This record gives sequence, structure tokens and C-alpha cells, in this order.
Amino acid sequence: MSERAINIAVDAMGGDYYPEVPILGSLWALNVWPDGRLAVKLVGDQAVINREIQRIHTSKLYKFRKKYRDGDGRITVVHAPEVIGMEEKLVSIRKKPRSSIHVGLNLVREGQADAFISAGNSGAIMAVALVVLKRIEGVDRPAIATVFPTRKKPCVVLDVGANAECTPQNLLQFGIMGSIYARHVLDINNPLVGLMSIGEEDEKGDSVIVAANKLLRQYHAVGNINFLGNIEGWDIFPGKVQVVVCNGLVGNVILKMAETFFPTLVDALTEKVKTGGLDQKLFAGIAKTGLKPTIGSLKRDFDYEEYGGAPLLGIPFPVIISHGSSSRKAIANAIFKSCLAVRHDVAGKIRQSFQTLNT
Amino acid sequence: MSERAINIAVDAMGGDYYPEVPILGSLWALNVWPDGRLAVKLVGDQAVINREIQRIHTSKLYKFRKKYRDGDGRITVVHAPEVIGMEEKLVSIRKKPRSSIHVGLNLVREGQADAFISAGNSGAIMAVALVVLKRIEGVDRPAIATVFPTRKKPCVVLDVGANAECTPQNLLQFGIMGSIYARHVLDINNPLVGLMSIGEEDEKGDSVIVAANKLLRQYHAVGNINFLGNIEGWDIFPGKVQVVVCNGLVGNVILKMAETFFPTLVDALTEKVKTGGLDQKLFAGIAKTGLKPTIGSLKRDFDYEEYGGAPLLGIPFPVIISHGSSSRKAIANAIFKSCLAVRHDVAGKIRQSFQTLNT
Repeated sequence: MSERAINIAVDAMGGDYYPEVPILGSLWALNVWPDGRLAVKLVGDQAVINREIQRIHTSKLYKFRKKYRDGDGRITVVHAPEVIGMEEKLVSIRKKPRSSIHVGLNLVREGQADAFISAGNSGAIMAVALVVLKRIEGVDRPAIATVFPTRKKPCVVLDVGANAECTPQNLLQFGIMGSIYARHVLDINNPLVGLMSIGEEDEKGDSVIVAANKLLRQYHAVGNINFLGNIEGWDIFPGKVQVVVCNGLVGNVILKMAETFFPTLVDALTEKVKTGGLDQKLFAGIAKTGLKPTIGSLKRDFDYEEYGGAPLLGIPFPVIISHGSSSRKAIANAIFKSCLAVRHDVAGKIRQSFQTLNT
Repeated sequence: MSERAINIAVDAMGGDYYPEVPILGSLWALNVWPDGRLAVKLVGDQAVINREIQRIHTSKLYKFRKKYRDGDGRITVVHAPEVIGMEEKLVSIRKKPRSSIHVGLNLVREGQADAFISAGNSGAIMAVALVVLKRIEGVDRPAIATVFPTRKKPCVVLDVGANAECTPQNLLQFGIMGSIYARHVLDINNPLVGLMSIGEEDEKGDSVIVAANKLLRQYHAVGNINFLGNIEGWDIFPGKVQVVVCNGLVGNVILKMAETFFPTLVDALTEKVKTGGLDQKLFAGIAKTGLKPTIGSLKRDFDYEEYGGAPLLGIPFPVIISHGSSSRKAIANAIFKSCLAVRHDVAGKIRQSFQTLNT
């Protein structure tokens, strides 16, 4: 598979800043991906995409920044006349079979693309992906995973919103899928798996967690998973485990709360400076000399853009749901992560694991 | 009630640093509480407590720091020969009816104390409080609440661990109790209540949340609650609401995750400095001149010690569960908060609300 080019279908009509951001992100990825055997199919309204590409061609970005060059013809446009809005409900989504999300996922199903990336309506992406690509046999509920920065290795948290309610079996399956993703896309050898609960002891948590703990321990004994046991909220950031298993409600709260940590501190710090907690002249000096790059580098460490979006695990092909407010960089990183998922055949490895699990 | 002294029973044998910290925290509170009509009953092994008080009397703390003086005889010792360990299970807790937790809660039941504070085994405090003090009529499940710093007003999150699984009715009751606490102890007029979910829309969340949303809306229409609707993880720190309603699993994850937020960033910043992300000499200069106090003041803003522990709501008297690692200041603040709860008769107001709710 690594011999031929990897084809990534990118939803040009998804996210808060389409078509500009998906297109610039794609160009960035094409110009940066090391071996050049990467191609992007931009999916969306042909006229809109072409007009945007024209605009980029005549812009300063194109002229002066190598990463936004045209990618040597490795970018193609696939027409999709319909657009699904960020807040659109499932009822009306079903009536748009020619949307960029439908067309992009069909490219994957037909083998014309290896993966699909969208910063669009996440509910729509998941629903349409399940209809078009189906689940991997044995997977009861696909999960949306998110990669978190920690003080040590990054960690995969799943589910973060696809399944507010879960069974113990769902949680076991999340642990298996998260481990495979961490191993092959994040390159973490033998990732430790923790089950999110309210205490470390096996009997802590609600009835689903207690039962899931048992299933994970059993699978740890016979299968290919490195289960540590229950973990608690304070174990995430210090990096105690590399896979965090939880239901979609807990995962969604973790994800969204974490997103506000850094901005909250920066806001508070800025206000301190303004209100005289820190001398303004001094602060200006610090900003110029050393603190600003440090804060900047710290920001990168805690930056979700670096991890490029949330993979949908449990379906037969890589699909990545990027944040609606994704930047170009986030789109480029989502493309890189999906290339790794394709190269390492993460979906195939999940399929194999579930064949073993169910025999 | 404000005419007579407030008597607070403090568990002298609770927490990671007993008896020193509960005693010093009590002295601090006695010497600082404005009107002097505050008395503390230290509950625990008489010999141990007296020896510790002697030690404090001969220490520099006592000599040079006014807040650790003896409190003009307003501190008394109530003997309790048994101690419940931090990790002790309920089976063995039941066999210790003369523990400091049992004796302290019995003082409250008998009217010899107005409130009880302990940094000990939180499961034991809750279990014994329910046996000794019973629930307020109409309250199905008492909740542990925690006060969070935000960018605006502080906010009460409940439940944070007493009830991993909840019914919609439980969540409604948490909203009512949290509102009363926010109004009277945090002095927030008409506090906004949010129901933690995975999306703002009323239909988002699991089946319990969807049903609880309906109950809260109904109660908002007729009762004394200011219900905003569903909120998400990113709404906590910016301070969108002043009461966050959730089940104990979600609340416990929020609480413990938030505790690691500030230390994680400080660790990361320190490492940046060490690894050359920021010039060390410059950093030393900054630390001396302005950044350190700023970080310090920022730390105070996000400092859980300021909020003095987690009130147990739904029982007829104020009981505060402080963190096992509580400092003297945290114990003193827990005493202050419990005084406010006594003065404003928070438990009585909860009882009144539930009488209305059930008629």
C-alpha cells in the first residue's frame, strides 16, 4: 500500500471557514508530506472550489509561501452540489444524497479515496459514514476518539460524543480500538488503557463501569490490550495512560472542558497585567524577550490543532472529524494522521482484533 | 440565630495531616472570623489533641502569628477514641461508633454543634451523616457539591461523586439545592443553572439528561430556579452559569481534572525554562520582579482551598467534606463557609423548597 499514492478526500464545504480553510489545509499537506505520494480530492461545489483556488493563486499566500503552492497537480476537484449546514438535523441531511459529505464518503467506499476528512457537521459525518461505509463486523458502536496532549505521551480519549450511553461491551470495544489507534497512529508501544471512573478500585463507578472493568481485565488476560484499571479525572493531564475509555457524555465533557483550560489561563494572566498585578512595562519587556515564545511553545504543547481532529473508529476506512473552527494547520494535520491510519491499515487491524474477539 | 455563637464541630482526626492541620485551621478561623461569636469543638482523641495544642503553644507559629493564638477559650475538645482511616471500608466503619466522624455528627444531631467539618474519609462522612442526621424530607439523594473558580462568579458543581448514577428527579433536586447554596453561601443573586450535556439543544444527552431537562424547565416555570438549559464542558471555566447539574461520575471527572489544570501548566512552564525554551537568567529576573506574584495571584484565583471543601447538600445540617490534603487555610475557609450556611439556614431553606416541590 505504501507503494502507491494515498488519496485523501477532503470536504471543501465543511467547517466554519469553508472553502478557504479546507483548501489551504490540503495545499499545506500536499506540499509538506515527505514522500510526495499523497493526493487530495477536494469534494464540494466545483464552481465555488475553483473560484477559491483562483483567489489563492492570485494571493500573496501563493506567491510567497511555499506550502500553499498548487501541489503539482496532485489536487483534484470532485463535484458535490449540495452542502450540509453545521446545525442541520438528520431529517434534512437524508434528503441531500449529493452533499459533499455523501460524495466524499462514497469516494472512499468505491476505492477512489483512502480516507475522508471533514470539519463539517459531526453528527452528519457520523450518520452518513455509518450508512455509506457500514461498521466493521463485530463493532457494536463506532466511537469518536480524540487525541489529548499530556505531560508525557499523548493519549486517546474515546468515546467523546457518539454514544452518550454505553454498555460494558461498548467500553471494552473502545479500549481495543483506542489501543490500535494509539499504537499505529501515535506510535506508542503497548499503550496503557485506563477506564474512567470515580475511584481506582475495581468496584468504583456506576454498574456499567464496574462490568466494563471486568471485561477489560478478562481481555487483558487473553488479548492484546494493556489494561491498567480504573483511572480518575486527575490522571489525564499527567499522562498516566495513553488510552482513556469512557462513555460519550463523560468524554465530551472532558474534551470541551480541556479546550477552555489554556485560553482561561491566558485571559486571567492578561487581566492580571491590565489590573496591575504585573507591571505593564515589565510585561512588555518579558513579552519581547522570552515569555511570549515560551507561552507560544506551551500553547503548542496543549494545542488540539496539532492532533488534527477526531478519528471515527469502528468503520472500515479512516474518517476524521475535524473541529468546526479548524485552522489550515488542523486540516493539514488531519490529512497527515489519516495518511498514517491508511499506511498502518488501522481499520484492517481493528477488523482482525474483532474477528479474534468474537471467535 | 445570629445572636448566639455558632458552634462548629471539626474532625481533628481527619485528612492527611491530622491533627495538626485541623487544629491550626480551627485556630485560624477563630482568630479571623469577624464578630468573634464563633466556637470550635475539636473532635478526636483527647490526648492526641491536647498534646498537639501544647506543641503549637510552644511553637513559633503561636508566638509570632496572631491567627494561631488560642482563640480566647473558644476552642474545646470532645473526646472520640476511634479513628476512621482514609481508605477504610464501610464494613469496618460501622464497627466504630465512637469515631471522630460519628461523635462529631452526633454533636450536630444533639444541637451541641451547628455544623460538622472533616477532611477525612469522604465515603465514611457521607455514610455516617446519612445514618446519624438522615435526609431532608423529599430529598431522594443528597449530593456532594463543589465550588469552582471561573472567569466570572464562582460556580457550584453537583453531584461530584456521591451518586454515580442518577435519575432525572435526582438531577432536578440537585439544581434546586445548588441554587439555594449559591444564593446564600456564595451570595449570588438569582444564580443561573445549567444541565451538563453534550450539546445545548434540549434533546441532546442521554435519556436521563433529556428527561431532567424537561423537569428543570417545568420547575423553572413555576418555582424558584433560574434554569438556562443544557450546557457543555467548555461553559464551566468561562463562568456561563453559577450552578452546574450533573451525575456524580461526570462531576467527579470535572472536579479531579480541574485540580490538575494549574499544576500541569506550571510544570510545563518550569520544564520549558529548564530545557531552554526560556532563558534561565531572564526567568530568574522575572520571578523576582513580577511574574511570581502574578502566577501566585493567578494560582489563588484557581485555588480550591479558597472555597473550603465540598458541602453535603440534602441533609438537615451543614456538613462539609474537605479534601484529604487540605491546608490550614482550606480548613479555615470550610469553617467560614459552614458559618454562612448556618447563618443563612441553607438546610432549612432546602427543606422549605422541598415541601413546596412535593405539594
